[in-house]
Amino acid sequence: MIERKDDICILQITVPDESVAETITRAVLEDHLAACVHLSPVKSRYLWKGEISRDDELLLCMKTTMAAVDELERVIRGLHPYEVPEILVLPVAGGSEDYIAWVEGCISGRR
Amino acid sequence: MIERKDDICILQITVPDESVAETITRAVLEDHLAACVHLSPVKSRYLWKGEISRDDELLLCMKTTMAAVDELERVIRGLHPYEVPEILVLPVAGGSEDYIAWVEGCISGRR
Amino acid sequence: MIERKDDICILQITVPDESVAETITRAVLEDHLAACVHLSPVKSRYLWKGEISRDDELLLCMKTTMAAVDELERVIRGLHPYEVPEILVLPVAGGSEDYIAWVEGCISGRR
Repeated sequence: MIERKDDICILQITVPDESVAETITRAVLEDHLAACVHLSPVKSRYLWKGEISRDDELLLCMKTTMAAVDELERVIRGLHPYEVPEILVLPVAGGSEDYIAWVEGCISGRR
Repeated sequence: MIERKDDICILQITVPDESVAETITRAVLEDHLAACVHLSPVKSRYLWKGEISRDDELLLCMKTTMAAVDELERVIRGLHPYEVPEILVLPVAGGSEDYIAWVEGCISGRR
Repeated sequence: MIERKDDICILQITVPDESVAETITRAVLEDHLAACVHLSPVKSRYLWKGEISRDDELLLCMKTTMAAVDELERVIRGLHPYEVPEILVLPVAGGSEDYIAWVEGCISGRR
């Protein structure tokens, strides 16, 4: 059954290259601040100082808990090269019971 | 106009390869449990038995309804090779009226 | 700190090719209806007139505000070749304060 539960969330960031992606990914997993991270390439178009900028970036989607997002942001900012990195929290409405328990276990396991 | 409606959702899973991806995708579409499925490659990094594991997977994002997610999970689990597959339900806040009507029609069409 | 704020959202669409993707992306950025757009390739499988259709598409994820989504949809539909394009609004639960302020500034800057 799908468990309707909203303490799990996805924290989404973008980074400029693989090296930064792997450094941040390893740090947040080793600190048990995320259970799983998906890395995928994206083309970014964005407004910066009145112009449209074009970059190739990597999107990192981190499965974590709402309780962990503040500390997760702190660790990310300490390793991120951007002045204003994209850091967004996407809500999750639920999931399969054993997967949700696994994510919660990975995160809470550190306390 | 954007219709503010939350009965639509995105059910997200990951699978190990194209063959499993296409088998699950065909089953959920033929059963009218999803209207549309997006497949895209991701690099996954995750905690498993105290170590960081590294896999190349496929992410499947299924446009469905909250009413269908339990049966959708049942069908997925019957075809998925993992012991604890990622199955997450992401909420949708709304969408264009005709697209939402199309998704609802695809899913409800089976009853 | 992560700011718990839900006026930001992600408007997600799919398009058939790069040319349509870049045309729509430039229009919504120049009109300050989105602050940032991520483009990524997806394989789409969907039900259309009783058959499963298979297309290679591009997914566009636009960071915008809930206040802007109706006008954003209007601009997209004016440039989109599909009869029933996928246009979905995904909620955001929060994000880093400076990034959220940047998105809000890009969008509100046009008024």
